[in-house]
Amino acid sequence: MYNGTESLAIRAGHLTIGGADIPALAKKYGTPLIIYDECGIRKACGEYNAALRKHYGENALAAYAGKAFSVGVMYRILTEMDFGADVVSGGELYTARRAGFDMGRIFYHGNNKTRAELAEGLDYGVGRFVADNFEELKMLEELCSARSTRASVLIRVTPGIEAHTHAYIRTGQIDSKFGMAIETGAALEGVKLALSCPHLDYCGIHCHIGSQIFDTAPFAETVKIMCGFINTVRDICGVETRELNVGGGFGVQYTDEDTPHTPDEYIRVICQALKAALVQYDLPAPRLILEPGRSIVAPYAVTVYTVGTVKSIPGCRTYVAVDGGMTDNPRYILYGAKYTFVVPERADEPKTMTVTVAGRNCESGDLLGEDVPLQQVHPGDLLCTLTTGAYCYSMASNYNRVPKPAVVMVREGEDRLIVRRESLEDLVRNDIF
Amino acid sequence: MYNGTESLAIRAGHLTIGGADIPALAKKYGTPLIIYDECGIRKACGEYNAALRKHYGENALAAYAGKAFSVGVMYRILTEMDFGADVVSGGELYTARRAGFDMGRIFYHGNNKTRAELAEGLDYGVGRFVADNFEELKMLEELCSARSTRASVLIRVTPGIEAHTHAYIRTGQIDSKFGMAIETGAALEGVKLALSCPHLDYCGIHCHIGSQIFDTAPFAETVKIMCGFINTVRDICGVETRELNVGGGFGVQYTDEDTPHTPDEYIRVICQALKAALVQYDLPAPRLILEPGRSIVAPYAVTVYTVGTVKSIPGCRTYVAVDGGMTDNPRYILYGAKYTFVVPERADEPKTMTVTVAGRNCESGDLLGEDVPLQQVHPGDLLCTLTTGAYCYSMASNYNRVPKPAVVMVREGEDRLIVRRESLEDLVRNDIF
Repeated sequence: MYNGTESLAIRAGHLTIGGADIPALAKKYGTPLIIYDECGIRKACGEYNAALRKHYGENALAAYAGKAFSVGVMYRILTEMDFGADVVSGGELYTARRAGFDMGRIFYHGNNKTRAELAEGLDYGVGRFVADNFEELKMLEELCSARSTRASVLIRVTPGIEAHTHAYIRTGQIDSKFGMAIETGAALEGVKLALSCPHLDYCGIHCHIGSQIFDTAPFAETVKIMCGFINTVRDICGVETRELNVGGGFGVQYTDEDTPHTPDEYIRVICQALKAALVQYDLPAPRLILEPGRSIVAPYAVTVYTVGTVKSIPGCRTYVAVDGGMTDNPRYILYGAKYTFVVPERADEPKTMTVTVAGRNCESGDLLGEDVPLQQVHPGDLLCTLTTGAYCYSMASNYNRVPKPAVVMVREGEDRLIVRRESLEDLVRNDIF
Repeated sequence: MYNGTESLAIRAGHLTIGGADIPALAKKYGTPLIIYDECGIRKACGEYNAALRKHYGENALAAYAGKAFSVGVMYRILTEMDFGADVVSGGELYTARRAGFDMGRIFYHGNNKTRAELAEGLDYGVGRFVADNFEELKMLEELCSARSTRASVLIRVTPGIEAHTHAYIRTGQIDSKFGMAIETGAALEGVKLALSCPHLDYCGIHCHIGSQIFDTAPFAETVKIMCGFINTVRDICGVETRELNVGGGFGVQYTDEDTPHTPDEYIRVICQALKAALVQYDLPAPRLILEPGRSIVAPYAVTVYTVGTVKSIPGCRTYVAVDGGMTDNPRYILYGAKYTFVVPERADEPKTMTVTVAGRNCESGDLLGEDVPLQQVHPGDLLCTLTTGAYCYSMASNYNRVPKPAVVMVREGEDRLIVRRESLEDLVRNDIF
């Protein structure tokens, strides 16, 4: 129901997630509150694993893109689900390590990793460094040389595909802060540089073509281009490319307008295109890596707020103000992202109001949705935003010195706190008075 | 120089702030680093105080809008500068209180203060509650009644002026999540409701017409409308309005394109319009309150980064990647805000490059400026963004689990740490592993 997942249901008029009553959890933990359904996350991981096995075999790995939601518990779940993890900073790496995650299954991303971060990555034994640029390769070689160790690297290439939801552009997307473009020759230079560094092990190539992509065609097109580049590398450098990491970007359903495919369908198309290209170029099958983030977590969480005021401006609109906003979900103010809203205590009632959901921050743009349908709502009611599992907690700020919300995980009806609510003391912890 | 302040200067080719060498501070504290010039902040506060006294007399107060930059040290400075403070959340209030700020000089704002926040405000003895809506007034009355205490309130009204930089719109801006519109009659209802509450002391009215306003005319127009409303309140309710708070919004210079006035000029125009309206309506002079935020802090800080990579994409653009980005300054990705950039170690050299300054976050939109002029820059160089004192640290997030930067304050060449850099341990402090 609602957002295409089985995590949400209605029981006795109340919205439930993972079998747990949302109003009861709001009462227990306070609002704003983010609630995840652990089974949903595990199911999504399992679908990626099964689809990779079915369409490609054992020589594949799904690695979770932690930027969507990087907290300790996630890495424990990923371990149990045989996932890898894509980290993009020393902070994400630290979180994964603190959770006991296997460092060998880490893909270390980032367009501008600092020397300290690379050194730390080496010390921790990170599995793959996804090298974004020449400077990073040189710095990594220096650090390895000083440590008498070797680093396994993927070269981040820009394949010239830019995908947006249902459309993609074949060329022109060499204008990116990320990676080295195939088209300009920079990508090949990057591979050559890696091959020339005695302490670097060139394992393969990586790309990422966009986010929230509903069409499968851009992935197929990307795989073709990447295999063409692998062929070029073999021709010119005389080496095989053992790993192909095509990143993520698989769409999820925020509103009824969104029509994502299943992981199986995305992976079927990717693997079909890959197998065809391997035949075309007579290449050995590389290890295939995918990096889903949003689709692993977004659909399996809701954010619960308490409504403070309902302000009807005659002939204009009705503002419903909640006790959170851009501080816990900046996606509307950043991208105009659309969400589905539900009054969880009256989830079975028809949506007869059209409202603008406003946050509590002192900023006109602090809205969560404009002109959205909603059940009748009054001050003191709870209000849920659905599909908030990705890029909400991870992008949270303390603007207006608003504390970050608590995060709860539910498993088959049982709840547990996985991130404590920030305290006022936390807010001033680093202030020197 | 540069942004219209005296805080910045060039000495031996280096950019300095408040007399301190920026490269030396970057070396001492690491990057990214935000550096404030305390004298600049004090000077700005002094200018507001002097202008209010000159143009209006003693019956006036400037209150700093903390959402621009709310940390402990700020409230100590405000105390010394005889300023009030505008807070918008329990977190800002807590910070002010921890810094020993006089609670009687607090203006408590917010479109959706929670019951807990209002209760806390009463317990702390907050000077003025700026009531945004009917629910808040009712809740405040209930809480006061239960405590056998009284609260002093201002009614936040929407005057129907929307100001943007050099333009403003006279009507139509009743569509706001903030306040009660004069035009719809809601504002008058709000005053009546406050007057009917035995535990509320109606002190006056508040409005805020926008941000980063360069023109003085919208302020004059606003004051006229507010006085018209004060007259209506006297006519209909038979009470005098003792306080008029016209908020803030005074512009600052981010780039050469920005042409703000001095505080003296804004205040001269406001007071002239106010005095004329008082004569017109035969009103007693109210206490005048202004709430500058950005103009108190923005011009008096810089953010210093270290450049990681310089990526020239032929025929396209040159990306200069720094070790911060949208996490410490989200104003570009949020609003396309423009900044001035300087290589602080070669501040006296001409800007012969045109670059796009990219952040370190895994997000295509994570830029700090596009096609901006810059001195020749290389990996390892420092890079400064000027005029970052407002809405940068206060809006900082931990996206990608990037720690918040350290903040240093300089006074006549002497530096001191005022906010410690977040540690990796801070990032996971609330995670339950």
